Amino acid sequence: MGLSEAPGERDTQALLPTTQAMELRRRNYHVERPLLNQEQLEELGSRSSAAGTLQWRTWFRCSRARARALLLQYLPVLAWLPQYPVRDWLLGDLLSGLSVAIMQLPQGTFAIMSVMVGSVTESLAPDEAFLQASNSTVDVAARDTTRVQLASTLSVLVGLFQVGLGLVHFGFVVTYLSEPLVRAYTTAASVQVFISQLKYVFGLHLSSRSGPLSLIYTVLEVCWKLPETVIGTMVTAVVAGVVLVLVKLLNDKLRRHLPMPLPGELLTLIGATGISYGVGLQHRFEVDVVGRIPAGLVPPVAPSPQLFAKLVGNAFAIAVVGFAIAISLGKIFALRHGYRVDSNQELVALGLSNLIGGIFQCFPVSCSMSRSLVQESTGGNTQVAGAISSLFILIIIVKLGELFQDLPKAVLAAVIIVNLKGMLKQFTDICSLWKANRADLLIWLVTFLATILLNLDLGLAVAVVFSLLLVVVRTQLPRYSVLGQVPDTDIYRDVAEYSEAREVPGVKVFRSSATMYFANAELYSDTLKQKCGVDVDHLITQKKKLLRKQELKLKRLQKQNKLPKQAAASKATSISINVNTSVADIESNDVEGSKAEQVSAGTELEDIAARGQEDAKAPDMSSLKALGLPQPDFHSLILDLSSLSFVDTVCLKSLKNIFRDFREIEVEVYMAACHSPVVTQLEAGHFFDSSITKQHLFASVHDAVIFALQHPRSDPINPVLATKL
Amino acid sequence: MGLSEAPGERDTQALLPTTQAMELRRRNYHVERPLLNQEQLEELGSRSSAAGTLQWRTWFRCSRARARALLLQYLPVLAWLPQYPVRDWLLGDLLSGLSVAIMQLPQGTFAIMSVMVGSVTESLAPDEAFLQASNSTVDVAARDTTRVQLASTLSVLVGLFQVGLGLVHFGFVVTYLSEPLVRAYTTAASVQVFISQLKYVFGLHLSSRSGPLSLIYTVLEVCWKLPETVIGTMVTAVVAGVVLVLVKLLNDKLRRHLPMPLPGELLTLIGATGISYGVGLQHRFEVDVVGRIPAGLVPPVAPSPQLFAKLVGNAFAIAVVGFAIAISLGKIFALRHGYRVDSNQELVALGLSNLIGGIFQCFPVSCSMSRSLVQESTGGNTQVAGAISSLFILIIIVKLGELFQDLPKAVLAAVIIVNLKGMLKQFTDICSLWKANRADLLIWLVTFLATILLNLDLGLAVAVVFSLLLVVVRTQLPRYSVLGQVPDTDIYRDVAEYSEAREVPGVKVFRSSATMYFANAELYSDTLKQKCGVDVDHLITQKKKLLRKQELKLKRLQKQNKLPKQAAASKATSISINVNTSVADIESNDVEGSKAEQVSAGTELEDIAARGQEDAKAPDMSSLKALGLPQPDFHSLILDLSSLSFVDTVCLKSLKNIFRDFREIEVEVYMAACHSPVVTQLEAGHFFDSSITKQHLFASVHDAVIFALQHPRSDPINPVLATKL
Repeated sequence: MGLSEAPGERDTQALLPTTQAMELRRRNYHVERPLLNQEQLEELGSRSSAAGTLQWRTWFRCSRARARALLLQYLPVLAWLPQYPVRDWLLGDLLSGLSVAIMQLPQGTFAIMSVMVGSVTESLAPDEAFLQASNSTVDVAARDTTRVQLASTLSVLVGLFQVGLGLVHFGFVVTYLSEPLVRAYTTAASVQVFISQLKYVFGLHLSSRSGPLSLIYTVLEVCWKLPETVIGTMVTAVVAGVVLVLVKLLNDKLRRHLPMPLPGELLTLIGATGISYGVGLQHRFEVDVVGRIPAGLVPPVAPSPQLFAKLVGNAFAIAVVGFAIAISLGKIFALRHGYRVDSNQELVALGLSNLIGGIFQCFPVSCSMSRSLVQESTGGNTQVAGAISSLFILIIIVKLGELFQDLPKAVLAAVIIVNLKGMLKQFTDICSLWKANRADLLIWLVTFLATILLNLDLGLAVAVVFSLLLVVVRTQLPRYSVLGQVPDTDIYRDVAEYSEAREVPGVKVFRSSATMYFANAELYSDTLKQKCGVDVDHLITQKKKLLRKQELKLKRLQKQNKLPKQAAASKATSISINVNTSVADIESNDVEGSKAEQVSAGTELEDIAARGQEDAKAPDMSSLKALGLPQPDFHSLILDLSSLSFVDTVCLKSLKNIFRDFREIEVEVYMAACHSPVVTQLEAGHFFDSSITKQHLFASVHDAVIFALQHPRSDPINPVLATKL
Repeated sequence: MGLSEAPGERDTQALLPTTQAMELRRRNYHVERPLLNQEQLEELGSRSSAAGTLQWRTWFRCSRARARALLLQYLPVLAWLPQYPVRDWLLGDLLSGLSVAIMQLPQGTFAIMSVMVGSVTESLAPDEAFLQASNSTVDVAARDTTRVQLASTLSVLVGLFQVGLGLVHFGFVVTYLSEPLVRAYTTAASVQVFISQLKYVFGLHLSSRSGPLSLIYTVLEVCWKLPETVIGTMVTAVVAGVVLVLVKLLNDKLRRHLPMPLPGELLTLIGATGISYGVGLQHRFEVDVVGRIPAGLVPPVAPSPQLFAKLVGNAFAIAVVGFAIAISLGKIFALRHGYRVDSNQELVALGLSNLIGGIFQCFPVSCSMSRSLVQESTGGNTQVAGAISSLFILIIIVKLGELFQDLPKAVLAAVIIVNLKGMLKQFTDICSLWKANRADLLIWLVTFLATILLNLDLGLAVAVVFSLLLVVVRTQLPRYSVLGQVPDTDIYRDVAEYSEAREVPGVKVFRSSATMYFANAELYSDTLKQKCGVDVDHLITQKKKLLRKQELKLKRLQKQNKLPKQAAASKATSISINVNTSVADIESNDVEGSKAEQVSAGTELEDIAARGQEDAKAPDMSSLKALGLPQPDFHSLILDLSSLSFVDTVCLKSLKNIFRDFREIEVEVYMAACHSPVVTQLEAGHFFDSSITKQHLFASVHDAVIFALQHPRSDPINPVLATKL
């Protein structure tokens, strides 16, 4: 698509002439060109600010293709349903739909949503509100009607929120759900599901719990009540589980000889219902069965807008949690099958389901891990499986419900647990992440523990916040390195890592592995000064102290001895120019120069003006050598800024301070390998001025090194050093 | 320090031989070397993992110099006090100390801390607890004793927390207080101070408020009560303000002729007290004066540990807020005067003040903007000013207090407001940031508004969280660009920005301005595919569809017609190899390959094995050309990874997917310019395997481009392409 047309225009405009390309092809790595600093590079490359208006134009373009694309984007069913490969997929979808539908029967609504909705209805319509005056018992019918009304109104509100958020493209939040996070979250969720099924396997009656640590309490309660296990239930579950595992093994063995995998789950469910009915499991062995399923549909009811105000907060929380669960499940399957989830589309779809469902007195919906897993592993391929499952549920609700009355709950639990196998396998992530990426392992573990301990809603929030903070922390702990030249190349690498890389004498090359911004700018300067092997700050303090002494001595001499005017003036000039530069540097870095400094700067300037510049070429009395201070063993410092991805004011200030401080100890600073967006931001931040020009910024580290070697310390011909003062 | 010794060892070891350096110096930019991919580069540079043990050794090293440095670090007073330039600074410190001391008198404890401590004492010792049984009035004396005890115990606890946090180096949190944040915060704080002084200027009595929006309410109340202004108070304030401004102007004009600036504040305060006493401002014009100052000291009292449990939460909050205020003020002055604040040192100092103060029944302390400003602008240079101010306060408390009884509060308000001028000037930041850095402007505005609306404690929290999230968002919105060669150089720049930069025919070079991680990895792939001008996903889908059709057709032909075995086998081989590769790719990306795919992959493999590889050199039926699909107009894609600062698993997967997808459409992918830490992380993440080797990673973009041009599409001699299959 667009392959033949699109590049046509570009070819003529921005491609290298073929002859030149031919030449490139023949060469090894051979480059011969003038040294390039940013200024020269911009001239050579004809730099202009990047045009940003083209995108808008395509955005507002109208065409038939675009209309079709939009239609397919908002109604993707139109794209895939007409191409549905009936022969390949229908059978799988049908079986999968049936299996899921049978699972839905007794499981009902999704656990997390049930808990959240339940707590809302219970707090807004508590038992006490329905005490009958006559006999102080609860009016169950009135209470349940109110609660159903609350729940369905809540559904409508949740739906409204989700559709709204989807339309304003709130779905971008899923980008914060990284893969280790999602995998840990779902592993934790499958542990939760596993624990929740234990009571059906053992036939226990547990108190219902929610909130932080409820999982731990449930496990403890299960252990506590284990002696009360109903043997019949456990046996049923184990038998069903073994059958399922055997069918799966059989499928694996025979997959080449069978036209399609055996529908193990469906067969097990139907078989179990039959056996349960035939043998009378419920009466003879106290096995819990699904029981009475109410038949018929209720008529649609309008939501009660007067409840909206009460429900708005909870509805928002449920909308976000429901979406987060759905999208993280969606992302797992997308990852597994290599397709992509449009999060805004999902939000709108989920919202519409809730909106329409709410009117029919439904619960807010989300996605259930256990049922999605069953749907996937029984061969479901498309939403057709979902449609079939819904249709089947509808038939069951209306008619067939009573047929499954005898299905033991333990069999359902076995189906779920066997299908959790894949999710629980994700525990091996811990090993692979330990070897591959410790930071991601940390995300995994924090997410898992938070989700296990704090439950699904709070755990997800903690995990997302933690993973974002970890990004910040990682950019805060960069690796700093001094670079050396790999012999006979233009390549510079960390001298600590590449033992053959050699520091160029007189030139330090420094780089950070992360972008520099407010949270690590101070660390950058500190590490730079430390890695240079010179106590820069101490040296500057000493220099200033000595200069101050010298100046005082000079003044005293002038006053007392009335030295020949010429010599004194020349000395004073050179000193005060130097002091003045440093003061000006501080001031430019300063926002509102303190009074004391202004006074001294002012005095100095006046001094210079008064004394004139009769003799500018006198030996520099303010140099480190003249003052008897040790000189650093390098004359140039090159900052490799290729890792800079954006610039903030703190970064700017730090760079300026590095220039100021190193120049104070007679080291000239150059920058290299800045990316274009960073150069633009440096310009916008008024970084380049008379003392730091674009001539200090080089196209590559090698350019800067060559320039630095050509212009060693205190070279009077050096144009850059000349502009500096 | 350390200049002559430290580099000695290094010189011999890691520096370039001087002859080579000499040669470098003479050259322009001229490089001639073999092409280098990562593998060759590592060999050439003798790469080994960087040693990380050296730091620990220096950490545990014992020496006299180190002991001295540690002592000076923890007791910095030992460093500066012996060198105190008495002649230069003592006068300024003395005057400044006196001015601040006089200000302290009526202002008392710092506003925010007062509010926080007040709310604690009031909730723990409410009026109702001290109702006397006899006449139902409050026992004021008993209540105040309890409250003082609560407050002093709180001080001790706050001190303990701060010392503890300082010792565990909690002070690092200040790195999150970026400069725009601090400046906006202090601007907002100075607005708060300004508003709080209005009632003294107008002589109004306002109800005390705290919590969110209290500033707005206070402003409204001031406006409301403006008609109740006490004219005498207002006139006093205006006169004092005008005098102060005039003295400041005079100081500016005469600064060269005066030995030191006039102490305007001190003169104003003494003068105002005299006038107030002489004229009787309080009685004749209802001007509020400072009033009775209790004389004498209270004896030290041990804190009550039984209150600790009740106070622990509040004490922690107060400790953090107090520290945050102190350190952000400290950072302002450090920035202005070019020194550095050791945040842990500050924490310990603040903690010790609270700990010792608490025993003497003091309030928890923090720093006051207004008083620090006065101290700075009246010429204070060192902590000597603070000591003098404390000493003066002590004298006043014990003896001189009554002398200042007649000082009008309005004069103090005028001193504060005049000194706020500098802080309020920071509003011009908005203009400069608008031009320089919009993102920092956003931080500024959010911090300012949050602090104004939510008060100092909550506002600071909101600002810090916001600025951290903004970093995440900025890394999430990188600029992506297609790079082209700047003619006749080895430099590649954004073709949209440099109009002379030319795309090399057949080669796409792509880079992102930010590191790639979970939150922007999908955006990276999407933008890459979009910028390449090829609908990659669509093309792959079409290719797979056509291949499937072809395969089915082939099978049907084989079954029906029994074609000559040779030809059929050769065709099938080439096709199934291809399909198999893609399936394997998906699986390697997959966690737990879905059953359907496993089945098909298995079948294919068996097919290949059964049919044998009799004829491997048959024309490739699965190429895009053979299938009648359009070929992309480039044969190589180069990812410039120089902006990558760390690698997470999502980034790894995305890179692998890019390799897989582009190879599917017959484009070979290369990477270039990875930094060493990233290479290490790629290795740890098992990124390099048989299909993506270190030969795909080049030292620079230019290396990769030359290699790509030497190895265009479907070149059978290409060793890299050969290893790919």
